[in-house]
Amino acid sequence: YAGFQAEASRPGEPIQPIAPPQEINLAKSELGKKLYFDPRLSKSGFISCNSCHNLSMGGTDNLKTSIGHGWAQGPINAPTVLNSSLNIAQFWDGRAADLKEQAGGPIANPSEMGFTHELAISTLEGIPGYVREFELVFGSPAVDIDKVTEAIAEFEKTLVTPNSPFDQWLLGDDDALSAKELAGYELFKLSGCIACHNGPAMGGNSFQKMGLVAPYETENAAEGLAGLTGIDADRFKFKVPTLRNVELTYPYFHDGEAETLAEAVDVMGRLQLGRTFSPEETEQIVAYLKSLTGDQPSFALPILPPSTDQTPRPNPFGN
Amino acid sequence: YAGFQAEASRPGEPIQPIAPPQEINLAKSELGKKLYFDPRLSKSGFISCNSCHNLSMGGTDNLKTSIGHGWAQGPINAPTVLNSSLNIAQFWDGRAADLKEQAGGPIANPSEMGFTHELAISTLEGIPGYVREFELVFGSPAVDIDKVTEAIAEFEKTLVTPNSPFDQWLLGDDDALSAKELAGYELFKLSGCIACHNGPAMGGNSFQKMGLVAPYETENAAEGLAGLTGIDADRFKFKVPTLRNVELTYPYFHDGEAETLAEAVDVMGRLQLGRTFSPEETEQIVAYLKSLTGDQPSFALPILPPSTDQTPRPNPFGN
Ligand code: HEC
Ligand code: HEC
Ligand code: HEC
Ligand code: HEC
Ligand SMILES: [Ca+2]
Ligand SMILES: [Ca+2]
Ligand SMILES: [Ca+2]
Ligand SMILES: [Mg+2]
Repeated sequence: YAGFQAEASRPGEPIQPIAPPQEINLAKSELGKKLYFDPRLSKSGFISCNSCHNLSMGGTDNLKTSIGHGWAQGPINAPTVLNSSLNIAQFWDGRAADLKEQAGGPIANPSEMGFTHELAISTLEGIPGYVREFELVFGSPAVDIDKVTEAIAEFEKTLVTPNSPFDQWLLGDDDALSAKELAGYELFKLSGCIACHNGPAMGGNSFQKMGLVAPYETENAAEGLAGLTGIDADRFKFKVPTLRNVELTYPYFHDGEAETLAEAVDVMGRLQLGRTFSPEETEQIVAYLKSLTGDQPSFALPILPPSTDQTPRPNPFGN
Repeated sequence: YAGFQAEASRPGEPIQPIAPPQEINLAKSELGKKLYFDPRLSKSGFISCNSCHNLSMGGTDNLKTSIGHGWAQGPINAPTVLNSSLNIAQFWDGRAADLKEQAGGPIANPSEMGFTHELAISTLEGIPGYVREFELVFGSPAVDIDKVTEAIAEFEKTLVTPNSPFDQWLLGDDDALSAKELAGYELFKLSGCIACHNGPAMGGNSFQKMGLVAPYETENAAEGLAGLTGIDADRFKFKVPTLRNVELTYPYFHDGEAETLAEAVDVMGRLQLGRTFSPEETEQIVAYLKSLTGDQPSFALPILPPSTDQTPRPNPFGN
């Protein structure tokens, strides 16, 4: 991400406001929006990206772990897609370099959309409204997974959330935060949260060990970076999640085991910083974190082009 | 339904144009829209009304039978919610008198949303954004199933689809239909389809036997009206489905066994009228039926009020 950075009126701060969407190819993003909402990219015809990253609910499903094809129980908490264009890499362990690479994953994941890229493409090829739109956007009517994921990624670039109360404060409005929220921000900086949760997204820009000072106990099998590198020291290293809209993205942590923000803040203090916050301090930090909820993306529910007699049909219950 | 009827420029026709939404309580409908999209009305936190009546896809799921809680396979094809306010009664067998009575059904149906009214209400009571909105709309903050279903029904009243090419023709635009579409309409009237598919919704206003002239063969267990009345003559009597937007509501019939409009038209001709259409005639009728696709409801994706620490959590995988 190398886009515009709003020039903050408080340039000394370690956090920058979220910038509005920049350099969007509108036609491509509109196509991507349809694909994002289209359950025909799944084997069942029932599950779309929006099923698990519900843009009515902060870009997540608010479940501990997701429900996928055949009611499969997912292995890990679904992160928000909001501001995901600001991430250095995608997934908790960063195994996809960018949004385009990421978007191919869930379609073919047996426990998510349960489909194959080939079948998804032949479904789209059988929908004349899509074929025309691919031609309009890409200059040729051929549909392939490269174009599909490129369009979805373009739509996801629009899913930023500027204008939170905290951003209004960063941009100079002294009244945008209450005294309690400001006290929370001071604590957030002074106690060291800012070391990992910084930049416009307040996260998403580094991998850090969960359980730095004291070990994190979980029954979840995810290993973090170690699953990719095989290196023992990478065990439980996860991409630091964004704290933008964190009020909306409950439950918390990669295993979804923290139900409330107060619990997540308490765990962070003890396990990452060796510090136990008083109830008042936790309350202040939580109040501050709730000031990070920005304007949610607002757009008309897309109307999808209908299948025709030639379009392959979904297969929800068969093999 | 006793609303405004657009005065057609062709008053002799047995079908009237779809009227735009009338006498809508906007605040109530906006609340109903949120509830319609809110998966927290289901046990899993994953299934909303819009999961099965997807307003991006003609108000249906385009599946033979629906997917419900725990990936349960539904017993019958999901009808569209579009123009459902024009129905004399709700469900294929009419067992709910109106939209308000209907809306309570799926929440508590174990194979649909799998919840109870009590749990749905305590979930909503735990969401301050909803409590405030119920107070605004109904004058008191108490949440109950009566208000919930009333608000959803108010939203559903807005889900009409005026302005189809056929309606434009009905309203006097001679160029709105092609010669083929017009020929299809003539056939539709002359061969007798109009006997059952009439009124603005072209259906929804009577119960008729499926397989009037020749029996309908199906493995689906639904009995139609007989399931309610116990009367043998009511076997396979179903509410005549609306033909508005029928291009979008595939697959067809209560069992979802007709995949294409051509197949549905052929079956209707033979089983309801004892008439076998030539391929050309079927094509003309299908072309006409596709002219019944109206303006789809257009509105911003609703942003749902977040749960708080006190809100009961969904239970997707437990008992
Ligand atoms: C069945 C649930 C499910 C579906 C469907 C789904 N996702 Fe995800 N998504 C997840 C989960 C769970 C993760 C985390 C996986 C991990 O990190 O190992 C994830 C991760 C992501 C991420 C990475 C975010 C980050 O901060 O690392 C993005 C972006 C994303 N999904 C977008 C999409 C898109 C686009 C689609 C549709 C093509 C989609 N998802 C479909 C559950 C789902
Ligand atoms: C050393 C790095 C580091 C420090 C310091 C740190 N965090 Fe985190 N934070 C992380 C990582 C890594 C995760 C993800 C852990 C996981 O999911 O297992 C995380 C997760 C969170 C979450 C949950 C977000 C979500 O969506 O799941 C919150 C809230 C949070 N941190 C707040 C804080 C606060 C408040 C502080 C200071 C008290 C803090 N963090 C200090 C690295 C850090
Ligand atoms: C799991 C799938 C599913 C869910 C969720 C669901 N429905 Fe339905 N809906 C159906 C099916 C299947 C039928 C037909 C049942 C029958 O006729 O016996 C139906 C029938 C209807 C009808 C009657 C339409 C007609 O023409 O008779 C309306 C209106 C409706 N649903 C609205 C809703 C609303 C409002 C919600 C949410 C509160 C909802 N549905 C949730 C599958 C679902
Ligand atoms: C005697 C009453 C009657 C007549 C005449 C009739 N229909 Fe129907 N139509 C029905 C009923 C009842 C159904 C629902 C049957 C079922 O689902 O099992 C239906 C269903 C349909 C459907 C499927 C709609 C859907 O959403 O599933 C189409 C299309 C249709 N009719 C078109 C026609 C056409 C074209 C004609 C004339 C050739 C016609 N009908 C004549 C009563 C009738
Ligand atoms: Ca405030
Ligand atoms: Ca989460
Ligand atoms: Ca249907
Ligand atoms: Mg036309």
